[in-house]
Amino acid sequence: MKYLQGEPHALPGNHQPLASYEARHFLFAVEAGVATLTLNRPERKNPLTFDSYAELRELFRALAYAGDVKAIVINGAGENFCSGGDVHEIIGPLTRLDMPGLLAFTRMTGDVVKAMRACPQPIVAAIDGVCAGAGAMLALASDIRYGTERSKTAFLFTRVGLAGCDMGACALLPRVIGQGRAAELLYSGRSMSGLEGERWGFFNNLYAPEALLAEAQNFARSLAQGPTFAHGMTKKMLQQEWNMGVDEAIEAEAQAQAICMATNDFHRAYHAFVAKQKPRFEGD
Amino acid sequence: MKYLQGEPHALPGNHQPLASYEARHFLFAVEAGVATLTLNRPERKNPLTFDSYAELRELFRALAYAGDVKAIVINGAGENFCSGGDVHEIIGPLTRLDMPGLLAFTRMTGDVVKAMRACPQPIVAAIDGVCAGAGAMLALASDIRYGTERSKTAFLFTRVGLAGCDMGACALLPRVIGQGRAAELLYSGRSMSGLEGERWGFFNNLYAPEALLAEAQNFARSLAQGPTFAHGMTKKMLQQEWNMGVDEAIEAEAQAQAICMATNDFHRAYHAFVAKQKPRFEGD
Amino acid sequence: MKYLQGEPHALPGNHQPLASYEARHFLFAVEAGVATLTLNRPERKNPLTFDSYAELRELFRALAYAGDVKAIVINGAGENFCSGGDVHEIIGPLTRLDMPGLLAFTRMTGDVVKAMRACPQPIVAAIDGVCAGAGAMLALASDIRYGTERSKTAFLFTRVGLAGCDMGACALLPRVIGQGRAAELLYSGRSMSGLEGERWGFFNNLYAPEALLAEAQNFARSLAQGPTFAHGMTKKMLQQEWNMGVDEAIEAEAQAQAICMATNDFHRAYHAFVAKQKPRFEGD
Repeated sequence: MKYLQGEPHALPGNHQPLASYEARHFLFAVEAGVATLTLNRPERKNPLTFDSYAELRELFRALAYAGDVKAIVINGAGENFCSGGDVHEIIGPLTRLDMPGLLAFTRMTGDVVKAMRACPQPIVAAIDGVCAGAGAMLALASDIRYGTERSKTAFLFTRVGLAGCDMGACALLPRVIGQGRAAELLYSGRSMSGLEGERWGFFNNLYAPEALLAEAQNFARSLAQGPTFAHGMTKKMLQQEWNMGVDEAIEAEAQAQAICMATNDFHRAYHAFVAKQKPRFEGD
Repeated sequence: MKYLQGEPHALPGNHQPLASYEARHFLFAVEAGVATLTLNRPERKNPLTFDSYAELRELFRALAYAGDVKAIVINGAGENFCSGGDVHEIIGPLTRLDMPGLLAFTRMTGDVVKAMRACPQPIVAAIDGVCAGAGAMLALASDIRYGTERSKTAFLFTRVGLAGCDMGACALLPRVIGQGRAAELLYSGRSMSGLEGERWGFFNNLYAPEALLAEAQNFARSLAQGPTFAHGMTKKMLQQEWNMGVDEAIEAEAQAQAICMATNDFHRAYHAFVAKQKPRFEGD
Repeated sequence: MKYLQGEPHALPGNHQPLASYEARHFLFAVEAGVATLTLNRPERKNPLTFDSYAELRELFRALAYAGDVKAIVINGAGENFCSGGDVHEIIGPLTRLDMPGLLAFTRMTGDVVKAMRACPQPIVAAIDGVCAGAGAMLALASDIRYGTERSKTAFLFTRVGLAGCDMGACALLPRVIGQGRAAELLYSGRSMSGLEGERWGFFNNLYAPEALLAEAQNFARSLAQGPTFAHGMTKKMLQQEWNMGVDEAIEAEAQAQAICMATNDFHRAYHAFVAKQKPRFEGD
């Protein structure tokens, strides 16, 4: 920052590198600032468990302080994204919990979404095959969604006797695809096809299955090479202005953008433009 | 509920059956938990009157306590949905009211929408032909909308010198079809075609006129046979989270879904799954 | 108004005619109640400058009191809409400002959007060619957008190292085209084509370039000949209900529409209908 003296980002604790993080319940690899997170139980279509929920929550919380990760791709192994909470490993135990235990569980799953929305890195979801229940919520909690024609996205909570309000679905889905379409998916639990999802704005684009992950990584890489401090501000303000009035949102953006105008990246862009060069952003 | 002792739903006053309700200003019939409400003045394209507004308001309020109705279909007789407030029976008298009288009227019509959004039953609107003014608002206040290609939906308040802000239109329509498209319809009062409506997310699906009502009833029946307590929670949270922040919405859903995990329907679904059977939901 | 005695709109200061306003930094002409505002530096694709921002802000604020302007068309000269903040005239000087200076700038640009949303006249944007940065925000701050197939709309703040949160973009764009599509445009800064914009609800319609301005003026004229007091209320309530709950929005509309039912335009419409004539609205 131009206006701050001293070491940039010098706040202790704000630089916990994650490039060498060894995940236990999924795959995690970082290359050129792009973390690729792969749900990896393909024989079961990559279900979530109590342990993988908890690790996802902790990882996305840690990403808020990881200076070496600039964008995130989330995908599933073996031609499926994620089948959601496993019936035997999640649903069964839930039927034996008391109310504080149930609330502890629903808060844990909600905390995964909160952490995904709170980390500054844009998240690109690459969605092939089955994308169901909590898996559909991981997709919805991402910033950008790439899909395939054969992908099947189902908010199927109703199929196990539950409500469509899970992990923020009733707030997030209507803003992505519209209130009427969201209501149908949440009441019925039916699958949305890839083509429907693209037409409705759930998917930003569809790709062939074999190209899907590379396309998601390409887009994430282009973001990682951009003004990442500013991207983090874009993500923050998309969240922050969710339920502000228009005038209050405009004032909030005046402040947020003034902060970004004090970054070196903004100055680099101007000088590159004047020199007829492509700017090289460094995220500070 | 697993966690509550005693008679389920035992609260006095919470079980007012409506299956045999004899409506005065429209048709009302209940079959297998699905109420079909038919606006029935086909020679005038089913206009609304002071009396039918009031009866709609009272009926939807009563539905909040009707244990024998699990889903609702609303439609119009004679190939039209509803022509809105009748010019002679509504507009004329309004021109002779004082301000308290005018406000009493606009609050009554708004109360119909409030009651439709507050009752726990999902509402499926089956919309053929003319769907105009307050009729378009009854459609918009429903959860799911099925249309026909020839349907014409017009928020035509501007044509009688009024504003587009009627019965919640400026809040509801932008969330269903987007702010820009809603603005055009509300300023111009023009008809939205069936194809536009499907493309924009106003209609969940289009059907041939002769199949429309049966399709709406089929979908309503599938909801009535589902976990109706959970459906009511889905509907409540879609309303409740309308202007919450994302994090607050996620906490609200954690609580709401924990409640649903304490229902018998959730347990039935799990045991049916383990036994490789289809669950039979009972709404408790 | 029927219910108010004395001169209509008699409040001093509420009738500042603008038909003969001589704009300094763009063209401004009023015909039959429709103001056409033309950004007019075609050799540079109509960029904005500090001075033109300030004049736009003052003009839209004055329009709130201009009884002779009933609708507004905004467009650009020479087959482009607006290239946004000029790199040499805006970006360069910004790199030399201190923080209070930066905030004064972002608040000034935000004030243009606030003033566009606050004036009672519906604004129709006619968008051909380049529509970029702050130019895209002028389009987004309009009520209705007409485009051409060849138009290119880019929220390209990220290209100069800034965030997507500029002049209200993170609040307005998601409500127009959906949260997922808005995120992609704001993170990437890429151009949205005319066809995409129409499909996503950004454009209300596409026209051939040579017909674009006339179509926008035609629509604006139809609004100017309508119940303009009611149109102003529609615009106000679309803004006012942005982050209200549904029930609160319905009460707000009950009050707003009751006000409109006390206008002469409402009475004129009724009497015209009874006489089988077309109503002539006068905006009072």
